[in-house]
Amino acid sequence: MAPELRRVVAVGVGAGDPEHMTVAAIRALNDVNVIFELKRTTADLTAAREAIVQRFVQRIPPPRVVPVHEPHRDRRASAYTQAVSDWRSARADAWEQAIGAELGAGESGAFLVWGDPSLYDSTIAVLDEIRARGRVRFDFTVVPGISSIQALTAAHRIALNRLAGAVQITTGRLLAANGWPQGATDLVVMLDGRGAYRSALTEPVDIYWGAYLGTPDELLVAGPLAEVAAEIDRLRETARERNGWIMDTYLLRSRAAE
Amino acid sequence: MAPELRRVVAVGVGAGDPEHMTVAAIRALNDVNVIFELKRTTADLTAAREAIVQRFVQRIPPPRVVPVHEPHRDRRASAYTQAVSDWRSARADAWEQAIGAELGAGESGAFLVWGDPSLYDSTIAVLDEIRARGRVRFDFTVVPGISSIQALTAAHRIALNRLAGAVQITTGRLLAANGWPQGATDLVVMLDGRGAYRSALTEPVDIYWGAYLGTPDELLVAGPLAEVAAEIDRLRETARERNGWIMDTYLLRSRAAE
Repeated sequence: MAPELRRVVAVGVGAGDPEHMTVAAIRALNDVNVIFELKRTTADLTAAREAIVQRFVQRIPPPRVVPVHEPHRDRRASAYTQAVSDWRSARADAWEQAIGAELGAGESGAFLVWGDPSLYDSTIAVLDEIRARGRVRFDFTVVPGISSIQALTAAHRIALNRLAGAVQITTGRLLAANGWPQGATDLVVMLDGRGAYRSALTEPVDIYWGAYLGTPDELLVAGPLAEVAAEIDRLRETARERNGWIMDTYLLRSRAAE
Repeated sequence: MAPELRRVVAVGVGAGDPEHMTVAAIRALNDVNVIFELKRTTADLTAAREAIVQRFVQRIPPPRVVPVHEPHRDRRASAYTQAVSDWRSARADAWEQAIGAELGAGESGAFLVWGDPSLYDSTIAVLDEIRARGRVRFDFTVVPGISSIQALTAAHRIALNRLAGAVQITTGRLLAANGWPQGATDLVVMLDGRGAYRSALTEPVDIYWGAYLGTPDELLVAGPLAEVAAEIDRLRETARERNGWIMDTYLLRSRAAE
């Protein structure tokens, strides 16, 4: 008889507010043998993750918390997709080793994912890559979580789409490289490290901007982009200096389409 | 001194699975004086909403549950946006009356929203309209919820975006009317009542399809659209006959972009 398969679960833990945790996510964290703790992100994020585990994991005995030391990404590499792909493989090496070493037959382990595992997060891709290699076998499931887009729209009390309208989700990199996407009226921008909204300054758009969404440091600005861009620039600079990192998400809404 | 403002909260309750409920949503439902129960949707959905209240509202005494009888939308109207806009105003009439009659000064009431209030839901727009009228004054907040898109990607264990790529979210109506959007590689379709994926049959796309996501009736199909479209047609027809309604969401992923 084949040994029972290991199980891995990618758990969306929300965009920063611990109260974004779903009942399913809490159940998943209490259900596994091991919680893998990725040692890569900033100290702030590690502390926030630990706070989630501490608050919501009540099983006795608790799951083992196992650190996984991840490689650093080469952020100076010029070929972006190749660099990200290489980094993904290096992460797969580290995770594969940890899953193989820490989970016995039939045991289960969780990876915590900020926001939702489906949006600009590589957890699912890394797990797919390990499974494709076939050396460490496991089944996996995904628990959805509140994304930063949803934290943004809730904080601004707006809908993402307009009546009968479409929405595009893109990255700061794509917006900066290609400009305003043809035909877009409502554009969500994620992973923007360098104020790509400035490339839309000449468009007739309103911006709904947020950073550190769902946390006590949350920053929100809304208004015509041309009027509030300088304020957002200033807030980003100050916050980045204070916190050492910034994670912002925003909606650009064309006034031309109204 | 001005009387204390009423408070209304739009609570995202997830895409069907009661375990999508967040800690914040549970807190909100236990915190209000009144839960407004919209009497419009199918019997199934009303029962599911009642099950959420029954399971998660534990405060004693519990909030009052107040029915709000909503108008029916004229689904035969040819001018779609006008019909939806008229319907929205008629809903605002009913809600305005209920908020004014049921909430005293400083009291609070909740509206439950399937999925997330930011996506193809008119709760926020209806509340905005009532506030703009200025006859019944209240403040409002939004609690985000797991959307059907997230339930879809979690069930299929896929990411929404591809590496460094963008995503479009659109409606079945727009896809059927305008065909495949120029430049789109990854297209999410919501609110599709009539199999709009068939208008993409000649495109080289894979479909990740789901219906009744997060519920015991959940249906999932994935594969090349041209190969699985007939199976989806058949499943939709059978399910609609059995349940009296269908709510499906899907991702169309272009193979040309790989």
